[in-house]
Amino acid sequence: MFVGRFQPFHNGHLEAIRYILEKVDELIIVVGSAQHSHTDTNPFTAGERITMIRLALNEAKIESSKYYVIPVPDVTMHSTWLAELKSYVPSFDVVYSNEPLTRRLVKEANGRIESVPMIKREIYWATEIRRRMLLGEDWSDLVPKDVADFIEQISGVERIKDLLKKDFTASGL
Amino acid sequence: MFVGRFQPFHNGHLEAIRYILEKVDELIIVVGSAQHSHTDTNPFTAGERITMIRLALNEAKIESSKYYVIPVPDVTMHSTWLAELKSYVPSFDVVYSNEPLTRRLVKEANGRIESVPMIKREIYWATEIRRRMLLGEDWSDLVPKDVADFIEQISGVERIKDLLKKDFTASGL
Amino acid sequence: MFVGRFQPFHNGHLEAIRYILEKVDELIIVVGSAQHSHTDTNPFTAGERITMIRLALNEAKIESSKYYVIPVPDVTMHSTWLAELKSYVPSFDVVYSNEPLTRRLVKEANGRIESVPMIKREIYWATEIRRRMLLGEDWSDLVPKDVADFIEQISGVERIKDLLKKDFTASGL
Amino acid sequence: MFVGRFQPFHNGHLEAIRYILEKVDELIIVVGSAQHSHTDTNPFTAGERITMIRLALNEAKIESSKYYVIPVPDVTMHSTWLAELKSYVPSFDVVYSNEPLTRRLVKEANGRIESVPMIKREIYWATEIRRRMLLGEDWSDLVPKDVADFIEQISGVERIKDLLKKDFTASGL
Amino acid sequence: MFVGRFQPFHNGHLEAIRYILEKVDELIIVVGSAQHSHTDTNPFTAGERITMIRLALNEAKIESSKYYVIPVPDVTMHSTWLAELKSYVPSFDVVYSNEPLTRRLVKEANGRIESVPMIKREIYWATEIRRRMLLGEDWSDLVPKDVADFIEQISGVERIKDLLKKDFTASGL
Amino acid sequence: MFVGRFQPFHNGHLEAIRYILEKVDELIIVVGSAQHSHTDTNPFTAGERITMIRLALNEAKIESSKYYVIPVPDVTMHSTWLAELKSYVPSFDVVYSNEPLTRRLVKEANGRIESVPMIKREIYWATEIRRRMLLGEDWSDLVPKDVADFIEQISGVERIKDLLKKDFTASGL
Repeated sequence: MFVGRFQPFHNGHLEAIRYILEKVDELIIVVGSAQHSHTDTNPFTAGERITMIRLALNEAKIESSKYYVIPVPDVTMHSTWLAELKSYVPSFDVVYSNEPLTRRLVKEANGRIESVPMIKREIYWATEIRRRMLLGEDWSDLVPKDVADFIEQISGVERIKDLLKKDFTASGL
Repeated sequence: MFVGRFQPFHNGHLEAIRYILEKVDELIIVVGSAQHSHTDTNPFTAGERITMIRLALNEAKIESSKYYVIPVPDVTMHSTWLAELKSYVPSFDVVYSNEPLTRRLVKEANGRIESVPMIKREIYWATEIRRRMLLGEDWSDLVPKDVADFIEQISGVERIKDLLKKDFTASGL
Repeated sequence: MFVGRFQPFHNGHLEAIRYILEKVDELIIVVGSAQHSHTDTNPFTAGERITMIRLALNEAKIESSKYYVIPVPDVTMHSTWLAELKSYVPSFDVVYSNEPLTRRLVKEANGRIESVPMIKREIYWATEIRRRMLLGEDWSDLVPKDVADFIEQISGVERIKDLLKKDFTASGL
Repeated sequence: MFVGRFQPFHNGHLEAIRYILEKVDELIIVVGSAQHSHTDTNPFTAGERITMIRLALNEAKIESSKYYVIPVPDVTMHSTWLAELKSYVPSFDVVYSNEPLTRRLVKEANGRIESVPMIKREIYWATEIRRRMLLGEDWSDLVPKDVADFIEQISGVERIKDLLKKDFTASGL
Repeated sequence: MFVGRFQPFHNGHLEAIRYILEKVDELIIVVGSAQHSHTDTNPFTAGERITMIRLALNEAKIESSKYYVIPVPDVTMHSTWLAELKSYVPSFDVVYSNEPLTRRLVKEANGRIESVPMIKREIYWATEIRRRMLLGEDWSDLVPKDVADFIEQISGVERIKDLLKKDFTASGL
Repeated sequence: MFVGRFQPFHNGHLEAIRYILEKVDELIIVVGSAQHSHTDTNPFTAGERITMIRLALNEAKIESSKYYVIPVPDVTMHSTWLAELKSYVPSFDVVYSNEPLTRRLVKEANGRIESVPMIKREIYWATEIRRRMLLGEDWSDLVPKDVADFIEQISGVERIKDLLKKDFTASGL
């Protein structure tokens, strides 16, 4: 199992998935924070993120029979998160994650947790991509080509700009 | 898009999916009431139901690239259900359903709704299967073989019996 | 304050409101179960019910300056219901209700509760109206004329029939 | 750990607690469905039920240092219930319960589950007590004396009657 | 429809409403974040805000038959917000708002969205009013007179100060 | 009643409880934010915090018959918090708290609220203890000895470090 928010899906995610698929036969990709969208840190809906993942993995010639893509909403109680996750996905043996809370919760439940090596990756990438989108800098080479096309098609950059833009004449209304 | 609860997935679902896949290129299978499990009408978790669907469609030689399987939790407000659904799944054109509430909500939102012909099907099938499981009657020929094997493997029938059995010495404790 | 679900608003509600307005200067009409719609007992949305109330009171020449119409969603905890209600509405002195739970909760909080006399009313009226709508019997003389017109305009009877109709070829799918 | 709803606490609960305290050093008494009150099956608040338990165990000369009384609200997802429970209470080794769902969920999580022998107990006791309260029959000998006094002091029987009574002139308003 | 939080209602809101009422026959005023109160950014309850609006519009001689005031609680999913809104209010044609998220969500749903011109208004006004209340500066000329009187009557300034004041001897307890 | 989050329970809490027990016969200790754990400000579960309180009060020779320890989850609506609290706990006469929101809500409901004198206490203590834990400084003399042992036993400091540590190769994945 590999857990991410995929806001948006980028080349770092793709490489992590390639790495894991060398180790396992079948991969469950969990789209976390599935209920969120249209915020600055979660601009895309779960459905849009699922579409990105399918497009990217098709483009990368990864067989759809090798993975599941499953949206899971956040829960209020961190202590029930792992139980909720288990209920939403097929059974799994290992969780791949570098995220401290995920690692801690799996560890406390005596689950098996592995790291994903992030070779040649800069830090805070999804954040960096959203920053570039917002400021009009070039971001499209950081994501698979079909993902970039899809984001354009749904006017994703325009949405991010709209959500962030300060309307100084009225926002305090 | 095809919406069901799949408690459990059975031959009627399989035939409906075959029928729809003749009409459309890509099918989104929504596993409804995703947050529910371990009740008499919803004995299986979303993850178990996703597993059943994958097993059944593999057995039926249906390409995994032709469909998505997406769990969606119920919402309290019926009036927001369609909006929630749209947010969880890739974009879609037609909803296939015979369920009155689903049909009504899609219709009121000016969406396109189609029926699924239920040829040679008896009524209330998932209910009938759970009834047979509970009473120890034969049910396995009503579901794809790999689904029957999976249900056995997770002791599904035992779970259904446990959940329903009246413990007359204590249940009113 | 007068609390109801108004599914739909009918002549009994109107008379109750007339009765109360003889006793008080200003009336808060609470549209309860505001988050529910499209079910057999709650077919209409809060917005539709607010529209019905405004239409009916206009038709009855009751000044809109004499009342507020405020939708309030149900809460999970009965014990917090009164606190939630107080937070949603302007301050009030008396609650008019014949509903046992409402009366009990107000009483336990030392609030003032009054009954609404239901002269010449048959029992279970909103239920009766929905029953008549479902079965195609005449119901329109039980509600104010403008409410009947509005229900027709939004195809309310069709909705109720759709929600209730058993689709025997598929509902157990 | 011993889980119950205690609507109200009665002699059967007391005997079960006595039985378990012979086996264990420390007992966690979970007051389930803690968020519910003022309904026909859950008339009493969590706080009232905690009071009943303390009164009953004091009356029975059971040391308060031997047990915890902890209210736990229900969760929507059965599959996360055990995780939620573990998060609300001190760590425990064994769950005592005759309730099928509780037993099933503990069993599936590989937890240790034990039955509580219900010697000389009639079935559906809390239900029976509420039935007697409602109909004005004698119920006070079925609960510890101090619990009966407390229920009287908070007008518990009156509350149950109020909640159930059909107000035939208005409930369908 | 005009959406605001009205914490508190001020002259800028009043002018916006006057402006819109020149364009439309009937206005739905939505009191957003209705479930919030007693926080630094949402000090007033929905009921108090409804009272302010009614007082202000009465003072401004705006007929109560020309508008609805409807509290709507926030939802967790932004993607369902518009659907929820539609369910709580009578049907509407145009949304007046300068708020980026509101504008974006209406735009994506192909709804009609208009701006409200904010002539002679300073930015962040409600924030500014709460700041002045907190610091004991003069704020009452920024809101309609009857709103100022009402805020005084409910000790609104004292509440804001209480909520914000750092109790340095204990807050880290 | 004394309300706290107890993240973790420390000597300041113990002294406050001693102070209150000189004034009252019976004390309800409310463990607030009960549903939270595994975050930087709420690292411990409700169950762990209840264990700490019991250990600390036993160590301080305070009779368990003199107090209740009751976890209460936060509610979304501040305006219903007091009603929720009353429903979860036995009836009480006075609330001891220095927390501004608690004091305000009790005051507005005409409840009796008292301060807890914080003699010889530095400000922001639980925060300070968590800060020391995080940075590897000495913290154990700030909490009762048995609480320190318990935190060690559940690897509490390791958990806090894990939750806070920035994993710079991946957290922006």
